[in-house]
Order: sequence, then structure tokens, then C-alpha cells
Amino acid sequence: MFHVNENYQKLPGSYLFSTIAKKVNAYQEANPDKNIIRLGIGDVTQPLAPAIIEAMHKAVDEMGHAETFHGYAPDLGYEFLRKAIAENDYAARGCEVAADEIFVSDGAKSDSGNIQEIFGQDNKIAVCDPVYPVYVDSNVMAGRTGTYDKETGTWSDVIYMPCTAENHFVPEFPKKTPDMIYLCLPNNPTGTTLTKDQLQEWVDYANKVGAVIIYDAAYEAYISEDNVAHSIYECKGARTCAIELHSFSKNAGFTGVRLGYTVVPKDLKCGEVSLHDMWARRHGTKFNGAPYIVQRAGEAVYSEEGKAQLKEQVAYYMKNAKTIKEGLKDAGYTVFGGVNAPYIWLKTPDQMTSWEFFDYLLENANVVGTPGSGFGPSGEGYFRLTAFGNYENTVKALERIKAL
Amino acid sequence: MFHVNENYQKLPGSYLFSTIAKKVNAYQEANPDKNIIRLGIGDVTQPLAPAIIEAMHKAVDEMGHAETFHGYAPDLGYEFLRKAIAENDYAARGCEVAADEIFVSDGAKSDSGNIQEIFGQDNKIAVCDPVYPVYVDSNVMAGRTGTYDKETGTWSDVIYMPCTAENHFVPEFPKKTPDMIYLCLPNNPTGTTLTKDQLQEWVDYANKVGAVIIYDAAYEAYISEDNVAHSIYECKGARTCAIELHSFSKNAGFTGVRLGYTVVPKDLKCGEVSLHDMWARRHGTKFNGAPYIVQRAGEAVYSEEGKAQLKEQVAYYMKNAKTIKEGLKDAGYTVFGGVNAPYIWLKTPDQMTSWEFFDYLLENANVVGTPGSGFGPSGEGYFRLTAFGNYENTVKALERIKAL
Repeated sequence: MFHVNENYQKLPGSYLFSTIAKKVNAYQEANPDKNIIRLGIGDVTQPLAPAIIEAMHKAVDEMGHAETFHGYAPDLGYEFLRKAIAENDYAARGCEVAADEIFVSDGAKSDSGNIQEIFGQDNKIAVCDPVYPVYVDSNVMAGRTGTYDKETGTWSDVIYMPCTAENHFVPEFPKKTPDMIYLCLPNNPTGTTLTKDQLQEWVDYANKVGAVIIYDAAYEAYISEDNVAHSIYECKGARTCAIELHSFSKNAGFTGVRLGYTVVPKDLKCGEVSLHDMWARRHGTKFNGAPYIVQRAGEAVYSEEGKAQLKEQVAYYMKNAKTIKEGLKDAGYTVFGGVNAPYIWLKTPDQMTSWEFFDYLLENANVVGTPGSGFGPSGEGYFRLTAFGNYENTVKALERIKAL
Repeated sequence: MFHVNENYQKLPGSYLFSTIAKKVNAYQEANPDKNIIRLGIGDVTQPLAPAIIEAMHKAVDEMGHAETFHGYAPDLGYEFLRKAIAENDYAARGCEVAADEIFVSDGAKSDSGNIQEIFGQDNKIAVCDPVYPVYVDSNVMAGRTGTYDKETGTWSDVIYMPCTAENHFVPEFPKKTPDMIYLCLPNNPTGTTLTKDQLQEWVDYANKVGAVIIYDAAYEAYISEDNVAHSIYECKGARTCAIELHSFSKNAGFTGVRLGYTVVPKDLKCGEVSLHDMWARRHGTKFNGAPYIVQRAGEAVYSEEGKAQLKEQVAYYMKNAKTIKEGLKDAGYTVFGGVNAPYIWLKTPDQMTSWEFFDYLLENANVVGTPGSGFGPSGEGYFRLTAFGNYENTVKALERIKAL
């Protein structure tokens, strides 16, 4: 008789955003006249930029003719895209990352879930707390996290690095030495980040203790301050300790287009074993490339037109971020983030729990946000609002919150 | 110090098609004047059908306007696509498969590599020999296959079910009871298949011994004989023992478009645990949906226009299959397949090994095929040619082979 992977049974409850969707739907059904504004899930609302639309139409046409038809893509992704990435995201920033160290994928969620597969079962992972839930959940499925404590909401074999107002959202080196360190910077959900000097300390630490950093740079395009690194490879020594994940979802609005990439430097080794070779083997065995049309769309992100249009798109969302941040401050809230990231992180008022504030905001302002406790135990007492709505709705949401 | 997944180190050599590509490139470099015809890799050559191109252009336009823009897709895939699949691939064939039992993905390669994750580490897998290498390789990576014997090319914990001319390519029930049985029907690489009655015996067997069948129906569109099932759910009892994987790569030419789906019936359980719930959790945690544009392309596959155009496309490739099969027979070869599948499987002449015949054909006819031994030990002495080339090249290749 076959058996199932029992680690799945350890996962508590359902995915955060499913629970939110259920609560919102129930409220809307009970109150059909209410106009709900959703600033919860991190999904974009602006249409794809014209340069991207044009590139996709062209690629669709190519697929309709035998002479220009494209079948299976090269394992790592098309050269035209990997070259554009290497030039724009790395060489232009003085980072040493070659085109053949870049693996094109269908998005950072797949990569951040799958990357743990190439590591040993007994590795100890460290995560910022709070953080994007996929890092821990994918390691739970792999059996790397020990047992779950319902009361504290923590796993016995996960090293949590609290990031709260008390430590200015800067994680401290953990007491137990980790093998794999997940860093999402700028951070989802807190919207805060580290300076380049602080990140350099993490790179030095990882090289010293022999840990690998899995660096999720999904929100890199929103960085506005000069002393913040756009890539971990801006730090010395990162090529021997860091894997970097990139998304096109937030900088180019590709949440429904699906494109991402992962950098595994050839210098990253465990003894004689090259992690680049391992990820290439995983990619070649369990994945068949991102669509040709989507890879051409990705190329257009790096065209002169595309860059100009996307700069405007990012500015549009960051105007929302400013609106939220200043509106909340005016209303007397304590707020963080929103400067180098499209997320605003606020302290719930009156000692409310995150879920209490969720209900309060939904019922009294008809605004949906995300409870901070959904991102980890240290997120309790905090709440996330996203800047990915449209401007008019964002202004309206803040008016309602201010009127409470 | 971090450790890597040591199972990866057990994998022998590189992926079959990488080795072929290297050999062909070396030959072409040494003989730049030779015109090589590639009937090796199973990649399609015909452009996307007009109905699909039209649907994609329309979807691209939608993505360019805020009112019709699509962000994150629903976890399981868009309802419009899942309904079209449920109606056309199942209800129309009298199979009971509901839309919410269908999980849309970026292709059958991802699904066939990932599906093993929801099963326990100690499960024993059984595979037809020869077969598509991803089933075994993904289980090697998961540590489910024991040790590799270089001489026999077999894994100690894998149950091999030889499919050769001697047993008419019909696998026998194995002596050791398996937990997970991979069946690819019509089979890649042999191009042979089972009758519906023979498949029913496998379903009965799986239900009896408590095994799960992972049924890869990637080549279903090429079935021409009436007594062959298009879906395993045409067999009684399959809902309690079978998962079915589908590709759009071969029926609609989507190798570079990337779309597939997996059916996990709600009746498939291990004790009280629903495999449908587990796969939903896996999908929700490590995947973010197939692109909206691609899901609209998939919908067009089921439109009246799309169906008519793709019927012609399949007929085009099957004309190639007939050309290859009859040409080889005329030249005195013993051939199989090519009736319900786009693959022709031939016995190598003069006791040549598969790789000897590969070199012989490359050097003397400038034709590339795939050595049977690359698909498993029982593939030794066989060779695969695909019908996915264009017609003119296929005719030319056969002329060259006949002239040898």
C-alpha cells in the first residue's frame, strides 16, 4: 500500500491568503452594498507597459509561422534574456554575474519553493520573522523543520530571527548556527530593508560559518535609498555563499505573466560539489523552460522604452505607498516601510491582535489588509497594507481609515 | 556548514538529450557541409494553429488595459480552461472528472517530476522499461531508488517492467509489489500502447495491491485505434487509484508555450488523507499558476476552430509516422509504434548497440535519432525516430536510410 509524504500533515491550517479571501467573501455576502477596497494581497493592478505588449504581440506572431516558430526553450532560458539580465541587473551595478549563471524560470515563487531541494535533509534553516511564508512551508514539506508548536506558532528546527520595531527590523546573527539563511530584502511584509553595510555583515557571517544565503530580491525595483544594495552580489564574497532569486512580478507587473530567474554562482560549492551544476540538473529534469513569448516580454523589460515605462509604473505604486504612509501617520498610527518597498507595516492600535485589527478594518472601513501574524509569530500586533492598488482606491481607503 | 542533497550525486551522466546534442554538434563542426536531419528529440516543428494565435493576441491586448488586466491566476487554473478540459477530455468520453479535480500547470514535465513529492520516502516505484527518463530521475533526486548498478544500468529499489518485442510491449505485473506505478501510454519511446482491456487489468491490479498509478497521457491525441483508452478514467475503478497527467505540447504544439494539467480525483485517498488536498497544497505553495495568455491559448485548443485545425496538425505528423514506418519496413527494418503515437521504435540491425546505430546513422545518413538504451536497459538494441519533423525532411531522411 502506498504512503503519502507525512510532512504535509504537519502544516497548520491553510495558506494565509485563502483564509483572508474566505473572510472577505463572507463579509461581502452578508453586506452586498459595501464597497470593499483590497489592499491585502500583493497583486498588481496596472496593465502591462506598452513596450511589453508590443514584444508579446510580435512573439505571438512568430509562433504562428514555421520559420519563426519556437519549440522547447534552452534549459537555462534564452540567451537574449539571460544576456539582458546579466548586463542590466549585474554588470551595470558592478556585480560579477555571468549569463550562464542565470536560470530563467516561471517565477520567484516556484524558485523559492524548489531551491531547498538541492540541499541536505539535515540542514537547519534560519528565517526572518515575519517573512513570506513559502520559505518555511516548503521546508516543512521537505521534513526539515521538526515539530510545530501551536501556542507559539513556531517549528522546533527553524531558527527564527525576529525583526520588530525594537531592533529596527534588522535581524541579529542567531545563537544557533544555521546552514541555510533566507533573506528577503526589501522585506515582505515589513517593507523595511538593510543597508549595504549591514548586508555585507551577513555575507561575511555566512562565509565564516559555512552557511548559504538564499536571497530573495523580489522587491528590488522599489529601493529608493542610495545606501541599499539592489543585489547581494554588490557585497564582497557573496559569490561563495549566496543564491539570488528575482521576480518580474513587482517591477514589471508580471504576476499573471509568470517570469523569474535565479542566480547560482559557479563559485558556490559544498566541498567539490557545484551548486550551479545541481540546480542545472534540477532545472533540466523537472522544468521545461518559461514560454518563448514570456521570455520576449522579459527582454522588453530591459529595452530603453520598457525601462522608462516601468520606472513610471514603480513611481505610480510608490505614490500610493506615500499616500498610505502619510495618511496613517496623520491618523496617529506608527508605521514602517514604504520607502524602499511597496509595503506599509503598521502597529495595530489599542493592543489589538493582527486578526482583530483585520476584522476591525474590514467591518468599519471596508478595507482589506493582511494580518502581520500570518507572516510569523513576531508579526503579531502588526498589519500590512500594499501599495499595489490603484491610486483612487488607495486615497479613498485612507480617507476611510482617517475617518474612523 | 551546509550540506547538499546527496541523492543528486548518484545520478549517472547527463540528461540523454544533452549527450545527443553534443555528439551532433561535434559532427556538424567536423563536417560543416553536411545537411543533418533531426528526428531525435520529440520537439514539434509546425506553427501554432490560427485559432490559438488569435486567442493569444486577444489575451495580450487584455493585459494591456487596466479593466481587463489579469494578475495572479486562481490556484488550480482559470475556470474557463478547467471547464473546457472537463467537458472535452472527460465528459465527452464518459469519464467522471470534475473541473475542480483538474490542476492546470506549466507542463507535464513539471508535473511528472513534482508529483512524487506528495508520496512517502519509502514507497517503491515501478516503471516500464524503456520509458521517459523523468520518472526515475525525479525519484533518484528524492532518494527513493537505492543504489545504481553501472553494469546493468538499473537502480536497486526500482521495479523495472520490461517492454520489448518479446512481450509485445505489454508490461507484466511485477513480482515485487510496487507502491507507485508509472504508466506512459501511448508509450514514449516505443510508440506502442495497451488496449483498454489491458489497461483495465492494471487498474484492477493497482486497486487490489493498494498502489497508485501515475498515468502520463501526453500522447493521447495520436491514438487512432478504437480499442485504446484516451484516459485511464475510462477504466472502472480508476478514480480510487490513478492520477493522470496531460500535456498540450504534442496535441497542440505547445512545447514552447508551456501548458499541462494533472487530474487528482477526490476519491484517491491514503487512509483518511486526500491526495487532492495534498496536491492543492503543493500547487498553492510552490507554484503561481500558468500565464493568463497561455491559459487562454489552452481554451482555444477546445474551440470548434481549434479542434479542426489541431486534427489536421496531428494528421500531418501521423503522415510522417507512416512515411517513417513504411520506409523502414521497405529497407528491411523491424519496426513498432507509429500507429497510436508519433514515435517509431526500430530494432537496430546487425546486433548493433543503440549508440553504435546512432553513430552509424549520423555518419552515413546524417540523420539524428535517439538511442533506445537512453530510455532504460531494455531499450538496448532499439532506436527511436520521431514524426515531429517537417514532411519534406522526413521523406528525405527515409530516402537516405533506404539508400544505405
